[in-house]
Amino acid sequence: MIAYNDQGHCFLHSPTAMPLAGGFLWNAHMLVQMNCRGYAVAQFMQPEPAKYAGGPMLEAKTFMQPEQPYYAHHPGRFFYVKDEHSGAFFSAPYEPVRAPLASFRFVHQPHCIGWQIRAHGIELQMELTLADDRAAELWTVTVTNLQEQERHLSLYPYFPVGYRSWMNQSGYFDASNQALVCRSVTPYQKVQDYFNHRHLRDWTCLLADTPPQAWEARQQVFEGEGGLHAPSALQQQLLDNGEANYEVPAAILQYRLTLKSGQNRRWRFVFAPVRDDAELAALRDHFFGSGGAGFDRAASAYRDYIQNGRGCGEIHSPDEDFDKFVNHWLVRQLYYHGDVNRLTTDPQTRNYLQDGMGMAYLQPSRTRQVIVTALRQQKRSGEMPDGVLLNEQAELKYINQVPHADHCVWLPICLQAYLDETDDYALLEECLGFADSNEQLPVATHLQLAMQWLLQARDDRGLSLIRQGDWCDPMNMVGYQGKGVSAWLTLASAYAFALWAQICAAGGRNQQSQYWQEQAGQLNQLANHWFWADEWYARGITDGGRLFGTARDNEGQIYLNPQSWAMLCGAADPKRQSSMLAAIEDKLMTPFGPMMLAPAYTSMVEDIGRLTQKFPGTAENGSVYNHAAMFFVYALYHQGLGERAFTLLKAMVPGLDDWQQRGQLPVFIPNYYRGAYHQLPHQASRSSQLFNTGTAGWYYRCVIEGLLGLKGCSQGLQVSPQLPEHWPGVRAVRRFRGAELEVEMRKEALLNQQLYLDGVRLEGDCVGHLESGRRYRLVVLLPMGEDHG
Amino acid sequence: MIAYNDQGHCFLHSPTAMPLAGGFLWNAHMLVQMNCRGYAVAQFMQPEPAKYAGGPMLEAKTFMQPEQPYYAHHPGRFFYVKDEHSGAFFSAPYEPVRAPLASFRFVHQPHCIGWQIRAHGIELQMELTLADDRAAELWTVTVTNLQEQERHLSLYPYFPVGYRSWMNQSGYFDASNQALVCRSVTPYQKVQDYFNHRHLRDWTCLLADTPPQAWEARQQVFEGEGGLHAPSALQQQLLDNGEANYEVPAAILQYRLTLKSGQNRRWRFVFAPVRDDAELAALRDHFFGSGGAGFDRAASAYRDYIQNGRGCGEIHSPDEDFDKFVNHWLVRQLYYHGDVNRLTTDPQTRNYLQDGMGMAYLQPSRTRQVIVTALRQQKRSGEMPDGVLLNEQAELKYINQVPHADHCVWLPICLQAYLDETDDYALLEECLGFADSNEQLPVATHLQLAMQWLLQARDDRGLSLIRQGDWCDPMNMVGYQGKGVSAWLTLASAYAFALWAQICAAGGRNQQSQYWQEQAGQLNQLANHWFWADEWYARGITDGGRLFGTARDNEGQIYLNPQSWAMLCGAADPKRQSSMLAAIEDKLMTPFGPMMLAPAYTSMVEDIGRLTQKFPGTAENGSVYNHAAMFFVYALYHQGLGERAFTLLKAMVPGLDDWQQRGQLPVFIPNYYRGAYHQLPHQASRSSQLFNTGTAGWYYRCVIEGLLGLKGCSQGLQVSPQLPEHWPGVRAVRRFRGAELEVEMRKEALLNQQLYLDGVRLEGDCVGHLESGRRYRLVVLLPMGEDHG
Repeated sequence: MIAYNDQGHCFLHSPTAMPLAGGFLWNAHMLVQMNCRGYAVAQFMQPEPAKYAGGPMLEAKTFMQPEQPYYAHHPGRFFYVKDEHSGAFFSAPYEPVRAPLASFRFVHQPHCIGWQIRAHGIELQMELTLADDRAAELWTVTVTNLQEQERHLSLYPYFPVGYRSWMNQSGYFDASNQALVCRSVTPYQKVQDYFNHRHLRDWTCLLADTPPQAWEARQQVFEGEGGLHAPSALQQQLLDNGEANYEVPAAILQYRLTLKSGQNRRWRFVFAPVRDDAELAALRDHFFGSGGAGFDRAASAYRDYIQNGRGCGEIHSPDEDFDKFVNHWLVRQLYYHGDVNRLTTDPQTRNYLQDGMGMAYLQPSRTRQVIVTALRQQKRSGEMPDGVLLNEQAELKYINQVPHADHCVWLPICLQAYLDETDDYALLEECLGFADSNEQLPVATHLQLAMQWLLQARDDRGLSLIRQGDWCDPMNMVGYQGKGVSAWLTLASAYAFALWAQICAAGGRNQQSQYWQEQAGQLNQLANHWFWADEWYARGITDGGRLFGTARDNEGQIYLNPQSWAMLCGAADPKRQSSMLAAIEDKLMTPFGPMMLAPAYTSMVEDIGRLTQKFPGTAENGSVYNHAAMFFVYALYHQGLGERAFTLLKAMVPGLDDWQQRGQLPVFIPNYYRGAYHQLPHQASRSSQLFNTGTAGWYYRCVIEGLLGLKGCSQGLQVSPQLPEHWPGVRAVRRFRGAELEVEMRKEALLNQQLYLDGVRLEGDCVGHLESGRRYRLVVLLPMGEDHG
Repeated sequence: MIAYNDQGHCFLHSPTAMPLAGGFLWNAHMLVQMNCRGYAVAQFMQPEPAKYAGGPMLEAKTFMQPEQPYYAHHPGRFFYVKDEHSGAFFSAPYEPVRAPLASFRFVHQPHCIGWQIRAHGIELQMELTLADDRAAELWTVTVTNLQEQERHLSLYPYFPVGYRSWMNQSGYFDASNQALVCRSVTPYQKVQDYFNHRHLRDWTCLLADTPPQAWEARQQVFEGEGGLHAPSALQQQLLDNGEANYEVPAAILQYRLTLKSGQNRRWRFVFAPVRDDAELAALRDHFFGSGGAGFDRAASAYRDYIQNGRGCGEIHSPDEDFDKFVNHWLVRQLYYHGDVNRLTTDPQTRNYLQDGMGMAYLQPSRTRQVIVTALRQQKRSGEMPDGVLLNEQAELKYINQVPHADHCVWLPICLQAYLDETDDYALLEECLGFADSNEQLPVATHLQLAMQWLLQARDDRGLSLIRQGDWCDPMNMVGYQGKGVSAWLTLASAYAFALWAQICAAGGRNQQSQYWQEQAGQLNQLANHWFWADEWYARGITDGGRLFGTARDNEGQIYLNPQSWAMLCGAADPKRQSSMLAAIEDKLMTPFGPMMLAPAYTSMVEDIGRLTQKFPGTAENGSVYNHAAMFFVYALYHQGLGERAFTLLKAMVPGLDDWQQRGQLPVFIPNYYRGAYHQLPHQASRSSQLFNTGTAGWYYRCVIEGLLGLKGCSQGLQVSPQLPEHWPGVRAVRRFRGAELEVEMRKEALLNQQLYLDGVRLEGDCVGHLESGRRYRLVVLLPMGEDHG
């Protein structure tokens, strides 16, 4: 039912097997999540996220939601096809008619999403791609007559735009621009908002390359008493050419066509937000001005844009599906996060830095830019803001209005990845100002201040205060009274100090390095003293002094994050590590990865917070929250437990055996799979379908640095693969500091790893002296039978 | 297709003729707008308005919208009926299946809304009423077998609750309470909101008097691939008993039943928001605790509540439909406005005072309370706030955050109506504090301060500054820079001064009276000087000094309000009055009333404001905005132009000849009918379906004081009817200061009006010395052939 082809394109052959499945396309101006049945969630930036097609009532402005439910009038892009002779009709891709189809194929390529539908002896090919340089959907639709006899058909593109405004909404056909235009005025009441709204693209247009025979702009008249599954207007020979005047508008066109046997006909459409008539005319000119060359040029430029998101490595392993996911889709997801910052104007600082970390493996200059941008918004005290503002009008919204304590932690993590990949230690000397001070200080000092801020943001015991949340946003009531502390943040601070100490050492700052190494060590001791609870690390101590995340709790007994980070920061000695790994296996593990906590909370715990009110098994309340699962995988690789780590990497991607349970195509990692595995087994493993997650960058890092073990260091490329036991070897490409290495790894009967660069055996595990612009062939011979797991 | 019965109940016999038609029910805790096809918009107070059933996605929090569009998944209350033998099914009242029905009858009674549906040889009677003392819908459903043979049926109540929360939503059947419970947690992110939300009723339950055979809480599973018009779950013998676990919940039950020919069976359900299990159990106990006696008690108490909303007059004229509308429905709408303040916690001051004015004719003590409550929130400067806060947590929201200049105007208007009705001049001596001062001053001084505030809130020319709006909210950019002035407000201030002068005179404050009479006169002169523009009054002068609302404008040439109020305040001399009446007739009049302005604006006018961005012919942009139309009617009666006034009173109620165009049942006055009569004739006259409007109080006042001419004064009841020419007479009941008068008016061949009280001829036009508790019979003989029009 689902499959990759050779180029990694992902296919789905049923519209009903995975009703929520789909994919997404983006450019710097917009994002569209396209569902296999035809529903769509799209937003564009002006500069704040806005919608050009919405639901049938005024929607709340909010962030993207997990497990987005669809319903008949949900926004989507549909094509009704009617046989003029028999009156029979169906709709493509599947909604809203849901007619039985002779065949259905949904195809996701990195740069486009398409369908091939066959029904009633007709084939419909539909393809959606985006413009490269603006918010515009480019649709190509081809109708083919598969039957022997000539067919008289009508094709009706039906692009609903929803309830737009109680102030003003309308729709009409603009013949000069060959566009169905849905106008509206974003509703408001305050004078100032008039000036704020003046620049908004409040209109939505469907531009056509060919004039239609008829059109309809009134959604409800089109639908009539027949309903969306059998619109009354389809019973007419021609649509009414009806304007919507303060009625819910929709872009509906009718093309009548006659096709001989085997004959086909193609249309192209552009669906886009526009500001006014001038912009509409410009848009038409841009795409359809000279016979549609602009349309093709834009589509081709968009393909180029997506292809630019090339990772620093490719893997060719015995596991082809894994390779395809990593090489085509994981890199793409990482590119999306890092290149357009999830299309937010105020990314949460931790997300911004981790997405930036991922870019170290695609376009390290972007990582540098992220570090610089973030540090310019640091306070002189060392504190990092809750979100990074990416334009001058941007404001901290939603969760970024809640104070979180962890943002400084991510600085050395992001920096280390960047330095390992580039060796650009000069960055540390670059002078930058602060959000609240013009004083120009080197990046190294900014980092130093950030580490000092973490150091002071502790209680009398020396434990890290959690304020209204750490990495875990909704853990907002552990410390809102100013006293609660976080075990994870204490351990993460130790890890940050240790990384910063390493960076200092590598940069020749030995005294500083020693200082931070000592601080890390002390934190580890404190963490072991206060947070180790019999068999694993607790999650924190509340304002009221209650240690939680232990066997004494009925719910939320064990949290994954403190365990993972205790492995990273070195707090966990081998005995502790083996005890807690056993506990994770016992209490958190599921066939699709480790849950973030267990058992999931089923009612509010007032000294933990909002987390406990989330539905059991969703999001932070005990789902397989992939970002957290990924920290665990990274920690496993860090500890050389590659066998176990690889199992979890694989578990994170919907596979042939469980795609239907997960309900998601293997074209991205979702932010979570439903957990509460023992509490609510029926829903467990269901994908959130939400592709915004800090997971992607870490996943790729684990593949490059953990699995393949091809990690940068000051001397060059450190080679220490952790291949799964059942792999005899692997081939890979690694682009590194301008050089390109073709890598072949083979397990042989050896005692120690051997490296051959262009046939020459190297001493040690590091490939040094690589020259930018050159290609190399690296053979890595690995001792057989090593067990990392 | 529509008709009243003898008791004024309103019937509609087609589900498709008027798809938006319906009615509303309310109590002090909730409101439900019930559409004839089964859709519903309901809110309850906690204490801010909230919903217990919503749409399929997160909805924006907003005020009630005009022309509310419905769609398949819109919230509603539906009953599917399936024949177990044939598998055939339909749904009542009509949605979502839209099956052809043998008959359909929608009935609105003042205290309940019901249907009688016949299809497939089955009759369904459904009735909705409310609990008297809490937010709860009470449903009674009766199924009758109309066929000869025994029938095996399933009845499925389908009460969707919508997408509730991205944090937590679920549904399950609670057998101990016989309730399908849909739980959720109102989504939030800030700690403080946890404490703000703790008291919220976030759950929705459907309590049943009888245990169902099966149930389903998963909306999407119920619907399946079949869709709402043919839910997949109906193909099963029994529903799945499926819990919704972070899935869109719905309350769906299944009752299997066998009915012999002619046999029927009845169910009762309660649909309500609840806070927790304890409240759920209490609710069950309350309604179904002792065989359902509580249900009956509540329904009966609710009927009593509605019947309490009795007006001070009843009319029995040759126009029975008019009588039924006024006696049953207009009074009811007025009661709704005045008794529960449109279910807002911060009514706009002008609405609060005008709704209070209306209550003078129902329950004058409420008017007194309104005046006192409003004046306690007056500033010591005399300025009135933009909204009146009705509880301690209430805040000024939406439009009440925009400064408007007119609120003081409504004080003497409301007060005059109250004093005329009650003669309670003692109120003027009652001492009250201020919003910003504890100083206790008499009501008369509060009024004095308000009038002084109006007097000073003028520009150098002496014209009233409009700030960011006057009565017309969206006229927000005429004066936002501090200079623009309003012609309407200048005239309205003159009228307010004149009324206050009358009240002063009646209360023996002669010097004050003279002062304010002079001020009124001066304002009238200024208005005539600055605003009279050739044939009618302009609407104002903008910040930039532009006189607008004149023949020199292409759009918005003439506004109704300045003309109406120039008639009220006496600014318009007979010549001006006749000129502007001709202009109104020519430019504003439509068969369903006068438009508020014409031509409607088709694009933004930056020195007028938001009004011009509204869709042409809707709301303030040139609709027949009934509140404004009513001012005009009141002004016509004021000027003795009763013939013309009555025509417009009639035109405001959907009639037999135009109900389909208006699309509304004659059970309330909507806030507008679409205008732009010449610009967009196709949509013109369409009802907004929105029953929140200041119109009701004025309408009733016009009937009592204008048409019937039974107006209170210090001496008693002033009698000066303005019956339409074609009425030979009228009978009426007038309750006045505790007395009840049975009134008969007859046109006879007389020169002057004659009054007979209990058979005794009275001198003059005033009925004095009426004793509370007594009944009188008043005969009014009117000279024939008088023409007021």
